[in-house]
Amino acid sequence: MIRQRQHPAATQRTTRLEAFTDGVFAIAATLLVLDLTQYSLGDVDSDAEMWAAVGGMGELFLNFALSFVLLCLMWMVHVQQFEHVARVDGTMVWLNNARLLFIVLVPFATNLTTEYSDYLAGRLAMPLTFFLAILFSWLQWMWAVSRREIMLPDMTREDAVAYGRSSLSALIIAATVVLLSPWIGSLAFLLFFVDPWLTRALRGKGV
Amino acid sequence: MIRQRQHPAATQRTTRLEAFTDGVFAIAATLLVLDLTQYSLGDVDSDAEMWAAVGGMGELFLNFALSFVLLCLMWMVHVQQFEHVARVDGTMVWLNNARLLFIVLVPFATNLTTEYSDYLAGRLAMPLTFFLAILFSWLQWMWAVSRREIMLPDMTREDAVAYGRSSLSALIIAATVVLLSPWIGSLAFLLFFVDPWLTRALRGKGV
Amino acid sequence: MIRQRQHPAATQRTTRLEAFTDGVFAIAATLLVLDLTQYSLGDVDSDAEMWAAVGGMGELFLNFALSFVLLCLMWMVHVQQFEHVARVDGTMVWLNNARLLFIVLVPFATNLTTEYSDYLAGRLAMPLTFFLAILFSWLQWMWAVSRREIMLPDMTREDAVAYGRSSLSALIIAATVVLLSPWIGSLAFLLFFVDPWLTRALRGKGV
Amino acid sequence: MIRQRQHPAATQRTTRLEAFTDGVFAIAATLLVLDLTQYSLGDVDSDAEMWAAVGGMGELFLNFALSFVLLCLMWMVHVQQFEHVARVDGTMVWLNNARLLFIVLVPFATNLTTEYSDYLAGRLAMPLTFFLAILFSWLQWMWAVSRREIMLPDMTREDAVAYGRSSLSALIIAATVVLLSPWIGSLAFLLFFVDPWLTRALRGKGV
Repeated sequence: MIRQRQHPAATQRTTRLEAFTDGVFAIAATLLVLDLTQYSLGDVDSDAEMWAAVGGMGELFLNFALSFVLLCLMWMVHVQQFEHVARVDGTMVWLNNARLLFIVLVPFATNLTTEYSDYLAGRLAMPLTFFLAILFSWLQWMWAVSRREIMLPDMTREDAVAYGRSSLSALIIAATVVLLSPWIGSLAFLLFFVDPWLTRALRGKGV
Repeated sequence: MIRQRQHPAATQRTTRLEAFTDGVFAIAATLLVLDLTQYSLGDVDSDAEMWAAVGGMGELFLNFALSFVLLCLMWMVHVQQFEHVARVDGTMVWLNNARLLFIVLVPFATNLTTEYSDYLAGRLAMPLTFFLAILFSWLQWMWAVSRREIMLPDMTREDAVAYGRSSLSALIIAATVVLLSPWIGSLAFLLFFVDPWLTRALRGKGV
Repeated sequence: MIRQRQHPAATQRTTRLEAFTDGVFAIAATLLVLDLTQYSLGDVDSDAEMWAAVGGMGELFLNFALSFVLLCLMWMVHVQQFEHVARVDGTMVWLNNARLLFIVLVPFATNLTTEYSDYLAGRLAMPLTFFLAILFSWLQWMWAVSRREIMLPDMTREDAVAYGRSSLSALIIAATVVLLSPWIGSLAFLLFFVDPWLTRALRGKGV
Repeated sequence: MIRQRQHPAATQRTTRLEAFTDGVFAIAATLLVLDLTQYSLGDVDSDAEMWAAVGGMGELFLNFALSFVLLCLMWMVHVQQFEHVARVDGTMVWLNNARLLFIVLVPFATNLTTEYSDYLAGRLAMPLTFFLAILFSWLQWMWAVSRREIMLPDMTREDAVAYGRSSLSALIIAATVVLLSPWIGSLAFLLFFVDPWLTRALRGKGV
């Protein structure tokens, strides 16, 4: 077991973790369309009724696009983190699994928020799911930083901490979205546009 | 962060972008079959009725095959583009995400065009979805060309521009298909067979 | 475009073709389960009724397992072929797409064969789909052999031809299954167990 | 066929087997969500009723999370095994396919266990499916150990055997879960927490 001896025991390469993660993100993003295909347009007898029926899918389209964009955003965060992560241990893989559990829930939460937007539980479903996914994304980076010699060999401590600030920024925004969504619904997600500025503020003037 | 320093800040390798893209294309292409499995053949009492029922799925099969072929075509364009793209920045990834958003919509648009081909909105669904996907494919290449030193280091400016002509050709054809489809429906997609000649015409005699 | 110049124009690496193919196979194989989850067990009031209901899914399970095993077999053939294929051209990619079109149809054909096994069209659905997939698998290899210098640089002509014999063997068996299935149904697929012997016979004593 | 000659005939690299496996695991894990999206919350007229309806999905959520965690666990076992496996032969690929067959069945078994937990067949569905998947995982490792020179070139015989003990531990626990589940249902899966201690006990004091 020569190859293994060179590396700390019980750590592994990230290739397959990345492949599994890319697969789950791609499938979750694509399954969002099932919400659209399974929607019944009802009886349609003229072009005017057809346009009205398609127009009636407005909120469905909006939440579909919103979940797709947020999934892409979270996938990009994962890609950026693992540009730096060299090896992972068991804890890291389980934090990744927890993160993916909430990614898998996105099509369900999107469906719930669209169909039951009149009720508190419906309005909370999407924000809460994304908040929990982002929470585990942040925990994963914190864990990597705490095992920096093994997992982030190419990064200085300063870079790693500064980098963690963008995860923290996303986490703070996601928590705020959860708090605001009972009042303003999916509009609250527009807060994510503030992310670049909040990241910069958290990093301080230095980076 | 030595490895990163060698490359322009905020760019990354294309490996995972390609994996995510391949995943989304593969899933969208495979989900097309759900349209077939969810179709009910109705009551069947004899071999003759069974053949008639299968024959009645003709348009369904046609649009299934058409969407599959177009998805394959668009996937091949992506592969050819990224044979040349060395690194991507944030804008490039978002243009890729927008492109994938419309790829994910293909099973829904196919379903709509098949079920509601009597109405304008139904006949436009597939052509419009493919047009928008191709539009972002063209924008992505234009962006790569404008950052040629970083993203297309192996290509001369002339090659890159000539290459963009095939994207432009596809875009022009897709726009024409949108304009023709209200009158001739999915038949309009046959225009894509003109692609090689139009590409050659756009490139001029040189390339 | 230095890197490209080293290779024949309009050919590309096989990495992404393999990733796309693996994705389509994995999804088609996994979607087979939807046939099982969407089956309604009906009213169940006791353990005895429950066992009877599960037992009544027998044919469903059988065709599920059969399609899964055949998909695995066809995936293995693809893997073995592309252990040798170094580069592909446009024709090769389109032959691969045609092959995948029928792989994508497998969940639909399986569903049809299970639900309509009383009718000829139902009994033919699975055998015909697999036959067409294997036909394109054979055509793809024939094309690779005809462009051997570019696509199979590591193989001697003799090895390549001998190798094509196993594709031919599978093709002959698949055609026979199509012919037998109207009489003996899915049982005909047991013929695939003859494959190793037929391959050897076709290769002659030499290989 | 120079490249091939260096390796034992009829063996191949593990890259695509790993890609196919990652794909099947990712899709099976993501399809679990369909069980949630297809559940109807029924008529809801107030926030109180909505919370009650969501609360009524408790068992559904529990079995969803349980299957997701078990799938992740089994995927991690596969990853760890194939960190060591260098090449595979036909038998190895078929054992992998059998393993994946039961992974694909997980969404169906989860559905059965959730909906029919009052009946023996329902309570057995999930434990039995995972037991069979783990059985083939163990058989696969045993086969690799028996062809150690080719398949596990980097491992000493002692390491390989010790490593097999963790597969054996999982197998013993899975069998016990099958035996206990008729009485205590999905609670029996908590036994998997004993895994680290049982593995250590089976390995003896040495490793």
